[in-house]
Amino acid sequence: MSILVVGSVAMDSVKTPFGSVKNALGGSATYFSVSASYFAPVNLVAVVGSDFPADYLDVLRKHDISLEGLQTVPGKTFRWKGQYTYDLNQAETLDTQLNVFAHFSPKIPDAYRNSKYVFLGNIDPELQREVLRQVKSPALVACDTMNFWIERKPHELKKTLKHVDILVINEAEVRQLAEESSLVKAARAICSWGPKALVIKRGEYGVLFFNRHHVFSAPAYPLEAVFDPTGAGDTFAGGFMGYIAKSGKLDDGHLRRAIVFGSIMASFDVEDFSLNRLRALNWKKITQRFAHFKKLTHFEMVK
Amino acid sequence: MSILVVGSVAMDSVKTPFGSVKNALGGSATYFSVSASYFAPVNLVAVVGSDFPADYLDVLRKHDISLEGLQTVPGKTFRWKGQYTYDLNQAETLDTQLNVFAHFSPKIPDAYRNSKYVFLGNIDPELQREVLRQVKSPALVACDTMNFWIERKPHELKKTLKHVDILVINEAEVRQLAEESSLVKAARAICSWGPKALVIKRGEYGVLFFNRHHVFSAPAYPLEAVFDPTGAGDTFAGGFMGYIAKSGKLDDGHLRRAIVFGSIMASFDVEDFSLNRLRALNWKKITQRFAHFKKLTHFEMVK
Repeated sequence: MSILVVGSVAMDSVKTPFGSVKNALGGSATYFSVSASYFAPVNLVAVVGSDFPADYLDVLRKHDISLEGLQTVPGKTFRWKGQYTYDLNQAETLDTQLNVFAHFSPKIPDAYRNSKYVFLGNIDPELQREVLRQVKSPALVACDTMNFWIERKPHELKKTLKHVDILVINEAEVRQLAEESSLVKAARAICSWGPKALVIKRGEYGVLFFNRHHVFSAPAYPLEAVFDPTGAGDTFAGGFMGYIAKSGKLDDGHLRRAIVFGSIMASFDVEDFSLNRLRALNWKKITQRFAHFKKLTHFEMVK
Repeated sequence: MSILVVGSVAMDSVKTPFGSVKNALGGSATYFSVSASYFAPVNLVAVVGSDFPADYLDVLRKHDISLEGLQTVPGKTFRWKGQYTYDLNQAETLDTQLNVFAHFSPKIPDAYRNSKYVFLGNIDPELQREVLRQVKSPALVACDTMNFWIERKPHELKKTLKHVDILVINEAEVRQLAEESSLVKAARAICSWGPKALVIKRGEYGVLFFNRHHVFSAPAYPLEAVFDPTGAGDTFAGGFMGYIAKSGKLDDGHLRRAIVFGSIMASFDVEDFSLNRLRALNWKKITQRFAHFKKLTHFEMVK
């Protein structure tokens, strides 16, 4: 079953204590798509400028990502420049040039309208609803957002959330959105606005999942070295949605495994700059790390 | 099998966004002892002043904690005053009066010298070694420390670590002690100095355990409301050592369950001020939360 993703395709310049890249392939929809492509067919909706390198398109094509919904318009591609200091937890944005992304109006090609799984990347909540109006009857709608929209368009965001099954956001954004410091209480509040479930991304501390019946906690996979955290959250979402689409199931057990697959994909992402590590994966490497992840968290009940 | 604990018994004045207490029962050895007492007999070594309230002694006695090693000397009991702001992650110390604790010289009563499980609370690393010289042949020595000793007595601390099986410290202290931001690398470094294992306490994010063969990650139990985090780390250590002493086993499976029991005890501790919640537990409540904790982290392998 195919996944529709709407978000940004960008060119990133990133500096970490371990090196730097300039105008590297990036963007939320890019990380999501490549990550999800290991699980299911991906339909990408985004916009790039006329300066977007052809070999970046080849990267996406090699992962069988459908580019029919990728608009190319005159002008420059969205560029983000950021750096991470030693603890790698917090990106410091040095420069954001929205360029062609500033006027992005997502158009869903006919061939995409039957996509069963929809991921609304971090864009204007009004545009997120515009996407939903163009799809037919998705089995699952998941959505990301950020502090920018929580602060500027809280009412539009809440209107969008009415149509969303799973909200996937950062811990700080959960607290900000619900105006509540207790994550348990914040999750309950957010799930009363529409979403059936909430996935809370906590960076190096892993993921917390809440729905009306269950709580699930998954740690981050402990890595010897983190080189570049850029895209980890979108890569998580790609693995999460990817496994759901691959399995076609939405019960608690499958959602838990989807979270673990998301965490594993994110752990690969941060091991190198841009999508360098993500591009070089295969199913065996992914399932091997899944097995390690199981050992990492497993304990037996007391008799 | 009994546990020997050496540390502080204190009177705490704590303010959180949810209330405050004055001169409440506190101290690292107190939290540790009450927590461990649900699992195994506890032998306490500490010092209090002549002002220490008799009903605080009764609390300890009710938990069958041996007080033969609790010295009472002229002067005032160790007092700590602190507050937590809204996020509850970081205590701000407002005042520390060491009082009789400043000249604490741990004397291990004869009846304690055969204790099989030894926990060296956060005291001067030279005193920690002094304790070890007085015990006969412990099956396991675990130890806590803090930034104060890492900064002032790094060489003494490293000498102590040669005699320690498991070091139990905070995440920031791990990085500071090893001078290394990667926890995986830091754990490897610390385990080369003597300890066979490292337990990294991460507050609301749970615990990471490293030894030479395994990594285990346990989340914190998600709570609706955290009232007062004081003593959570010591309470964790009490549950951890308590379960080890109760089971008498040190294999990977038992150590993992010990970490989960530690996490559960800490989750009870933070639900009320001082030891109020810890004092009111029973084995059924503890194992019920253990079962919830299992559900919280469980997922199945992919076929």
